[in-house]
Amino acid sequence: MELLKNDESLEDLQLCGLKLIQKTDGFRFGVDAVLLSDFAKTLHSVKTLDLCTGSAVVPILLSAKTNTKEFCALEIQDEICEMAQRCVSLNGLDDKIKVQQGDLKESDKIYSKRVFDLITCNPPYMPVGSAVTNPSDSKIIARHEVMCNLEDVICASAKLLKQKGHLVLVHKPTRLADIICLMRKYEIEPKRIRFAHKAPDTEPSLVLVDGAYKGGIELRIMPPLFMYNEDGTETDELKRIYGK
Amino acid sequence: MELLKNDESLEDLQLCGLKLIQKTDGFRFGVDAVLLSDFAKTLHSVKTLDLCTGSAVVPILLSAKTNTKEFCALEIQDEICEMAQRCVSLNGLDDKIKVQQGDLKESDKIYSKRVFDLITCNPPYMPVGSAVTNPSDSKIIARHEVMCNLEDVICASAKLLKQKGHLVLVHKPTRLADIICLMRKYEIEPKRIRFAHKAPDTEPSLVLVDGAYKGGIELRIMPPLFMYNEDGTETDELKRIYGK
Repeated sequence: MELLKNDESLEDLQLCGLKLIQKTDGFRFGVDAVLLSDFAKTLHSVKTLDLCTGSAVVPILLSAKTNTKEFCALEIQDEICEMAQRCVSLNGLDDKIKVQQGDLKESDKIYSKRVFDLITCNPPYMPVGSAVTNPSDSKIIARHEVMCNLEDVICASAKLLKQKGHLVLVHKPTRLADIICLMRKYEIEPKRIRFAHKAPDTEPSLVLVDGAYKGGIELRIMPPLFMYNEDGTETDELKRIYGK
Repeated sequence: MELLKNDESLEDLQLCGLKLIQKTDGFRFGVDAVLLSDFAKTLHSVKTLDLCTGSAVVPILLSAKTNTKEFCALEIQDEICEMAQRCVSLNGLDDKIKVQQGDLKESDKIYSKRVFDLITCNPPYMPVGSAVTNPSDSKIIARHEVMCNLEDVICASAKLLKQKGHLVLVHKPTRLADIICLMRKYEIEPKRIRFAHKAPDTEPSLVLVDGAYKGGIELRIMPPLFMYNEDGTETDELKRIYGK
């Protein structure tokens, strides 16, 4: 199997020698995926599913950070899915991570119900708006709610999670009210919320939300996560998260 | 009119010479009321209502921080209400602040509908539980949802606010999901959320939430508010809020 195509590059994940294949001009994994895997890693899981998996960066990172035995990874775009599969193989993780092409709105036909302890998702952040001029563009699909929206992600998760299983999302803080209300609509109770700020005196740029399917009401807002020092260098916590 | 009763003390609000009467062994105003008035002060209002007003500390502080012409203040407990009235008189604010005894669940019979630009509330934080052994105790009523709960506060506000008028609450962060979902249930859209932390590496101890009745979806999570420095002294921002 060809390792890299002309429009792809190889990125060092700086964790256990893991590497990631990425499109040079496509959606590239960012700090969001890294924060998401760090936030999710404390949740014990035997079987984990990653929705909107892209290059499968979240299960690849979680495979190094946890004892989880089996990861499923779902991606709607054929070409990205094929790249994710090569990426898994490149890291020798074929036994652990099963990449599947499919639409998460049909995920209850793809997977057995109530088998997952943990579902992770770094979904498209932006509603479909005037900025979407080419809805078939791969980057647009990764960033905008063209193929699925927040409700689709939460609805699918509620069908697939075991009782007390967790859904962990990373998203824009502007969508927090939507996330909380949609989770409750589908009986996923918000349990932990953490905001990630570039600096202590700024509004957060990302929010991490952990909810439990049919979990009890018990919400913790975690201490804020600051990513950069005043001089622009990474904080000790961000370095720890990146495994440096 | 007698100024102070035997079981009361006089507290300096350290703002424009304002003073507050408090029960020595009752519920005393805390940093919550001070943060609430600071968070609400930027919202332009001609007519403001404070629910669960206690000693009327929030309207008294807001009268010094804003140009609001008229404050209404509602308190269910007779004795506390009478104290709040003396407190308003002591500060020479009888023309601006109208204290009223009554149940907020009946507030649409007490006030005209849709006349308030701003409603503030520092409600009881704790659900009624096993800790409530004496539900007629004044301190218990101030702290526990004996006489009214979060839904009562939000439901009453939705009836009284003008269109695009704001409800501003201070509460425990553990209740954030309840606050957001109840606001949306009553068409109050969360617009600003701010967490107050004792220190940067701690979970927040309070949350401030600002919602607009029939407002558009546009949520901002504000930079965190840190109250104390490592050596236990107040941060510059807390000093500014206290008007020091």
